[in-house]
Amino acid sequence: MPSYKAPVDDIRFVLNDVLNIGKYSNLAGFADAPRDVVDAILDEGAKICERVLAPLNQVGDAEGCKIADGVVTTPTGFKQAYKTFVDGGWPGITGDPEFGGQGMPYVLGFALNEFVSSSNMAFGMYPGLSHGAYAAIHQWGTDDQKQTYLPKLVSGEWTGTMNLTEPHCGTDLGLLRTRAEPQGDGTYKITGTKIFISAGEHDMSDNIIHLVLAKIPGGPEGVKGISLFIVPKFMVEADGSLGARNGVKAGNIEHKMGIIGNSTCVMNFDEATGFLIGEEHKGLRAMFTMMNAARLGVGIQGLSQAEVAYQNAAIYAKDRLQMRSISGTKFPEKPADPIIVHPDVRRMLLSIRSFVEGARAFYLWTGLKIDLSHKDPDPAVREANDDIVALVTPVVKGYLTDKGFESTVAAQQVFGGHGYIKEWGMEQFVRDARISQIYEGTNGIQALDLVGRKLGQNGGRGLFAYIGEVEHFVAENAGNAELKPFLDGLQKATGDLRDGAMWFMQNAMANPDNAGAGSVEYMHLFGIQVLAYMWSQMAKISLDAKAAGTATEFHENKLIVGRFFLDRIVPDTASLLVKLSAGADSIMALKAANF
Amino acid sequence: MPSYKAPVDDIRFVLNDVLNIGKYSNLAGFADAPRDVVDAILDEGAKICERVLAPLNQVGDAEGCKIADGVVTTPTGFKQAYKTFVDGGWPGITGDPEFGGQGMPYVLGFALNEFVSSSNMAFGMYPGLSHGAYAAIHQWGTDDQKQTYLPKLVSGEWTGTMNLTEPHCGTDLGLLRTRAEPQGDGTYKITGTKIFISAGEHDMSDNIIHLVLAKIPGGPEGVKGISLFIVPKFMVEADGSLGARNGVKAGNIEHKMGIIGNSTCVMNFDEATGFLIGEEHKGLRAMFTMMNAARLGVGIQGLSQAEVAYQNAAIYAKDRLQMRSISGTKFPEKPADPIIVHPDVRRMLLSIRSFVEGARAFYLWTGLKIDLSHKDPDPAVREANDDIVALVTPVVKGYLTDKGFESTVAAQQVFGGHGYIKEWGMEQFVRDARISQIYEGTNGIQALDLVGRKLGQNGGRGLFAYIGEVEHFVAENAGNAELKPFLDGLQKATGDLRDGAMWFMQNAMANPDNAGAGSVEYMHLFGIQVLAYMWSQMAKISLDAKAAGTATEFHENKLIVGRFFLDRIVPDTASLLVKLSAGADSIMALKAANF
Repeated sequence: MPSYKAPVDDIRFVLNDVLNIGKYSNLAGFADAPRDVVDAILDEGAKICERVLAPLNQVGDAEGCKIADGVVTTPTGFKQAYKTFVDGGWPGITGDPEFGGQGMPYVLGFALNEFVSSSNMAFGMYPGLSHGAYAAIHQWGTDDQKQTYLPKLVSGEWTGTMNLTEPHCGTDLGLLRTRAEPQGDGTYKITGTKIFISAGEHDMSDNIIHLVLAKIPGGPEGVKGISLFIVPKFMVEADGSLGARNGVKAGNIEHKMGIIGNSTCVMNFDEATGFLIGEEHKGLRAMFTMMNAARLGVGIQGLSQAEVAYQNAAIYAKDRLQMRSISGTKFPEKPADPIIVHPDVRRMLLSIRSFVEGARAFYLWTGLKIDLSHKDPDPAVREANDDIVALVTPVVKGYLTDKGFESTVAAQQVFGGHGYIKEWGMEQFVRDARISQIYEGTNGIQALDLVGRKLGQNGGRGLFAYIGEVEHFVAENAGNAELKPFLDGLQKATGDLRDGAMWFMQNAMANPDNAGAGSVEYMHLFGIQVLAYMWSQMAKISLDAKAAGTATEFHENKLIVGRFFLDRIVPDTASLLVKLSAGADSIMALKAANF
Repeated sequence: MPSYKAPVDDIRFVLNDVLNIGKYSNLAGFADAPRDVVDAILDEGAKICERVLAPLNQVGDAEGCKIADGVVTTPTGFKQAYKTFVDGGWPGITGDPEFGGQGMPYVLGFALNEFVSSSNMAFGMYPGLSHGAYAAIHQWGTDDQKQTYLPKLVSGEWTGTMNLTEPHCGTDLGLLRTRAEPQGDGTYKITGTKIFISAGEHDMSDNIIHLVLAKIPGGPEGVKGISLFIVPKFMVEADGSLGARNGVKAGNIEHKMGIIGNSTCVMNFDEATGFLIGEEHKGLRAMFTMMNAARLGVGIQGLSQAEVAYQNAAIYAKDRLQMRSISGTKFPEKPADPIIVHPDVRRMLLSIRSFVEGARAFYLWTGLKIDLSHKDPDPAVREANDDIVALVTPVVKGYLTDKGFESTVAAQQVFGGHGYIKEWGMEQFVRDARISQIYEGTNGIQALDLVGRKLGQNGGRGLFAYIGEVEHFVAENAGNAELKPFLDGLQKATGDLRDGAMWFMQNAMANPDNAGAGSVEYMHLFGIQVLAYMWSQMAKISLDAKAAGTATEFHENKLIVGRFFLDRIVPDTASLLVKLSAGADSIMALKAANF
């Protein structure tokens, strides 16, 4: 059975040394999170993930969820684990204190998300989906709606879902058919079928709050006529008690490649009572509140599977004896050397690790920017952070899941034939990670969001702010000779990032297909560049520690792994730039019928 | 349910126009395979694969094989399909006529292999493994062994297996523990446990001929003390009838990520009677006879899954309506445009297709070289072809399976959320393709074989012969202005291939870890270069057809897809060269304990 140990030390290094979150103690939430509190939360979070959730990961995959007449039974142990999770107060860690939450910074919540996803991604989606519902109601709900739903979502007594997709429409929500008939009393009758609904029905909470996209008859065509509704599984009475069963029922559980422990449902709405959230026909805006939160969470899922897969592959590589080192026997007393002596095994492991540690710094850096975009007293700072968050959200989602998946495949490869056998658990990481590239907007959609919307948004304000931050860092450290290889790599990657943006500016106006044709390559270029920035910062801190005589092996390891990232990953920005600059011609030339 | 149509036209184009196999009609086998015969065989092969094998692919995945007291039942329909396959004479298509085979060229057999693997990879492994057993007995067996086993293997009445791996040893066969005790009568008693044995036990044939690696006590240590044995499931009497059940039994069926329709067994040998094949302690040599054949077959498996996944993704992309083209609505009469209008969907499809068509030409070109290495009357030609086959075998296996897997993932991505749902069949292609990167030597081992052995073998004779062939082609077509973009790309890639080899020559002698550290990157560089060579040849034929006024849309499509390969894939050789030239330093620096 695979094991999992939460990377608490690495999280602490990023929070304290790289991001220096202590300096934000003037801000709400941060004030309540001094280092000892953060340490205690991380340690306790690590414990429940390692001891309660991780041991259920293979159980969930093997058993799956059962459905009978719309009633879903989750895998053995899930219900009890969820109770433990709720009793520990974990669902509400970043929740608004007004509704019973602990109000902790997002940057800390993100770290805990990683632990939960690494230990049991399918389980993590039950509380995970609640965050999206929480965010939408918190931002767009009426006071009454907030009082009715938020305390229970924050406590975890109830969970939430996002009901968007229908059989014939995923990306293109303008096509959706679910109808919402106004009843004249402020409520609506919702009728239609939704598919791929994560945690759509289960036995872990008293109530499930579905957020459902539907069209009110007579509204505008397409996405401009979509509204968002709250559809509780059980109606909530005025006193907060549960009333009648609403007309929403799970029709089936999807047969999926992975995340089998999560009950991904077909949901049938049959004149279910729904409550409009936000304005009529303005549902898309509210939907994006859920979606943006969810996209960052999915990016973390991608990385989380890479992390746990890495841990197990590293253990195996140190244990498995096979062949002798090509540079001479290393363990003559053993019948063969452990495979960690082989350069290619190390290459695979370091590819994963240099991604994971860089990506971890990236998502935490993004999490901090979310906190600052909400809480900084200076509106200009809030705006600058918000711009950067908007810009990098598709990169967190797309790059972290593409590389996360690739990393699980590499970790499986370290196991040779055993990696293909279920008992070892490695192939489950591959199957689970795979969904992260698909849901909450496929990575192709993320790339289009990045290139087609975010790059040019507000006259490119986000990109300028981001590149400005990077250049400031480079300038500030220009005299640091030992850091030079990192800064050189970072500057090369940043130049390619800028050139790519320039190429789109010059070529996508005349032919928009040039944007679509190179968008995924650009997203990957961006991902490598931003990780080069993270590695440069981590290297700087590590070199500072060496200069100060406070360095440990931890810092030495950072410098080695960072160097690997420079040697083996950064060179890809050049070829990605060449490829995207080839434009759309050879992509659009083939007649559709000839595919 | 996914569909499959054998790419007969593309195979014909490569066989007739690119490889011009008609000009070898002076050689054995080719003489019996004029164009009309080849056409008929391809058409009949296509039929059985499309109509009999493909419909069973999902059945095999869903049902798997059952085992009870060592008796294995294959999935519904497999047994009957195998009978149809045998009745059609398919197992013996390239078999030696002396033993009942049809003696057709390998290049044709390879094409049929692709059809079988695309339609049902798990099924294809039952007859597929027989080829390895056949090859070993054909090359190393005594006349008596040949007469006893080959006719039945050729007819398909019996199947074969390869019993190499043990729980503690896969790559490192020197560690194996299975013992072969000589009985004084020329036979041996074989005792031990083998794992991951494809088609190890099943209900489809009367007998199963296991080829088993074991150690004869008192022999040399390590791989120098390994011998190969024939261990039939049922003893074969002098008159050819089946006798007593031998002491070999399936202990379990492995629980695998994919190829679930194949009975991959744990095999227990308990004083089973074995017959030495070849010389004592020289088993590795005979094993490689099986292995090299198997490696090429596995490369074809990788490509085969990419092909069938591509076909289904292309159908879906033309059918699925979602969003409008960013360059303006293409189908105003429909509620949305089919997703084939989106550049990124096309990019994914063309990435697969440009790989598949290039890789198909590559494996067929390799297959022809195998034929020539056996059959050309000129020993120098035989040697040159044999050198190139030895050189590229790890590239066929490693590159075609790495990119084959990646292609199935891309094809799955085209389906969005539906790609993750079992009913659509796309995720099975991903799971099935995954094993091809692992078995018959992981792709890391292939890369090491390429860089550590094959590059330098016979003073680099193979590489010189290969690059000579490429340069001859370039020189011959130097005046062809329309072909110039292809030749430019090919020359750039060939330069990188040569520079990479040079770098290893200069840096791996002093530090062998430099070879291991860059070997996978070099294998990929080689794969791209060889596909650029194939695309250049296909482009030349297509341009010739245009010049002659005989071009069809088929030729136009080739030029477009080839152009995509130049634009989007060839640029990677540059970054691969940079990466491998970084050497082993950052890979070997981290202490083993710190992984």
